[in-house]
Amino acid sequence: MPILSPSNEALSAALDHAINNKTKPLGSLGVLESLAKRIGLIQGTVTPSLYKPAILVFAGDHGVVAEGVSAYPQDVTWQMVENFLAKGAAINVFAAQNGCELHVVDAGVNHEFGARDGLLNRKVAAGTRNFAQEPAMTAQQCATALEHGMALAADLPGNVVGFGEMGIGNTTAAAALMHKLTGIPVAQCVGAGTGLSAEGVLLKQRVIEAAVEKHTATEPLEVLATFGGFEIAMMAGAMLKAAERRMVLLIDGFIVTSALLVAARMEPAILDYCVFAHCSDENGHQRMLANLGARPLLNLGLRLGEGTGSALALPLLHAAVNFLNQMATFDSAQVSEKSE
Amino acid sequence: MPILSPSNEALSAALDHAINNKTKPLGSLGVLESLAKRIGLIQGTVTPSLYKPAILVFAGDHGVVAEGVSAYPQDVTWQMVENFLAKGAAINVFAAQNGCELHVVDAGVNHEFGARDGLLNRKVAAGTRNFAQEPAMTAQQCATALEHGMALAADLPGNVVGFGEMGIGNTTAAAALMHKLTGIPVAQCVGAGTGLSAEGVLLKQRVIEAAVEKHTATEPLEVLATFGGFEIAMMAGAMLKAAERRMVLLIDGFIVTSALLVAARMEPAILDYCVFAHCSDENGHQRMLANLGARPLLNLGLRLGEGTGSALALPLLHAAVNFLNQMATFDSAQVSEKSE
Repeated sequence: MPILSPSNEALSAALDHAINNKTKPLGSLGVLESLAKRIGLIQGTVTPSLYKPAILVFAGDHGVVAEGVSAYPQDVTWQMVENFLAKGAAINVFAAQNGCELHVVDAGVNHEFGARDGLLNRKVAAGTRNFAQEPAMTAQQCATALEHGMALAADLPGNVVGFGEMGIGNTTAAAALMHKLTGIPVAQCVGAGTGLSAEGVLLKQRVIEAAVEKHTATEPLEVLATFGGFEIAMMAGAMLKAAERRMVLLIDGFIVTSALLVAARMEPAILDYCVFAHCSDENGHQRMLANLGARPLLNLGLRLGEGTGSALALPLLHAAVNFLNQMATFDSAQVSEKSE
Repeated sequence: MPILSPSNEALSAALDHAINNKTKPLGSLGVLESLAKRIGLIQGTVTPSLYKPAILVFAGDHGVVAEGVSAYPQDVTWQMVENFLAKGAAINVFAAQNGCELHVVDAGVNHEFGARDGLLNRKVAAGTRNFAQEPAMTAQQCATALEHGMALAADLPGNVVGFGEMGIGNTTAAAALMHKLTGIPVAQCVGAGTGLSAEGVLLKQRVIEAAVEKHTATEPLEVLATFGGFEIAMMAGAMLKAAERRMVLLIDGFIVTSALLVAARMEPAILDYCVFAHCSDENGHQRMLANLGARPLLNLGLRLGEGTGSALALPLLHAAVNFLNQMATFDSAQVSEKSE
């Protein structure tokens, strides 16, 4: 995929010109202006449009929960998948509100759902293995997860895709990925997840520290297979394919961003296709975003996952595109320009 | 109007219970949870709803522009009103996108529009007088503006109202009001407005400093009449009436918040009815919000006015109400609760 920012100077200048001539003080729409420009660059046009936005929610289980790293039992993963299918979760509410299709993917939940309406069965295995003892997945499982993700993104009919996840234990996997891929100390990567006590967070830190001592992985794919989850690997694959298709990638919180970290180590240009929905309250997220040079749109103290931040940020993407397409210019509206 | 927060302990507890039993980790919807609670308290119910949201945009001119305090000529006020009527401004785009009715009010523009579809003529005078030399308005004009605002809010059919404004020179009026009502030094109240140079900002500061030396006003209404604008006074009146009607008040940027400062000095309980849409990039806004103990929803570097921040924040209000009404509970979805 091409790096976008410096690759098309003419388009970049045309977008700046279009944005600056709208009837508003220069720069006064703040972050929405850079957002409009980014979407224009992704789509290669000064009149971008968003259609059929979708959110893919990937669910997977994590063997590392055996170490006691989560405040909730593993069953909550499949129970929340059932909740998604019954439309009772936060992501159902926010996706419906903002006109966003929701696709729920079983990437590797430790539960047999059977054939179910609305559930995409891409189960690689019934949860990863416990990375405190052995690699979370085999190289083949990791490749399978990436491929499923790519195929899912290839099938999306729209040009915006948000990512979400569900998986008890997956902040532990994400923190391990973050440490391995950024070098940031484990203590600054771990957080309370769904609501660990300070003691629980410390245990989680120790589990990760021991595991990164044990495993020698250094290459992004190897790191992903060793510490990742099936939902994280499948998201990374979906992100790579979506960017290749020049879709707008809407990046949610801590776990989704850890999948992007992997994808960006494989294809740095992917970052040009990303919009960062929000800064989560999960401890490591702000540092993870900083590592990627990302400025998130929202900062609402969310730490729910599921893609909820992506769904909530979607109206701002529409606002960016709409002001660019619909606002009058100083000329067209015959409004006087700045006098000094 | 009643103070809401401590006045209904049973409702407050019922809202906490409803929010905490949704299928999500405790507190994980962050600011949306306190927002849902606030709206519930305003409406006096655990199942709040939002209907027919409206934005009132008040336009007025300011005599103090004769001192050279704005980057744009005064004609831009009426030209932008024309732009509102032609649906070419940012607020038209964002209000339409988010299903919000827009009402444009001539509170005191220095221009004869004649009878125009879509323009509410509540002109008190053709702009205020120059407060560098004399009070901006008479006590009678100020009272008239407040009354018009109250009558407009009394007529709104919905239960959410956002406020917006247009008026070349009105960041100068708002900064003077902020200084007089909070005691914060003028230098920390003034900003670049629509785009003043550092030199321009310093001139603006000097103009305000000289004016506050000259005028003796101390009571909120006197301060409003001395330094305010017709659009600011009319907003303050509309806010007071809307809160009395137990509507949700959506507070925009620097100038709208200055109108609320006045209203809150008259009726402190009004703050319980307010949702703060965003923190503007205008220099004094963050301090003004802090003075009111307000936590804004968005921080997008906006500094456009018109009510744009209010329109952009509206989907978050819907999200708050929707999760409260539509999400499953742990019981209803049979999801396990926290294990520690």
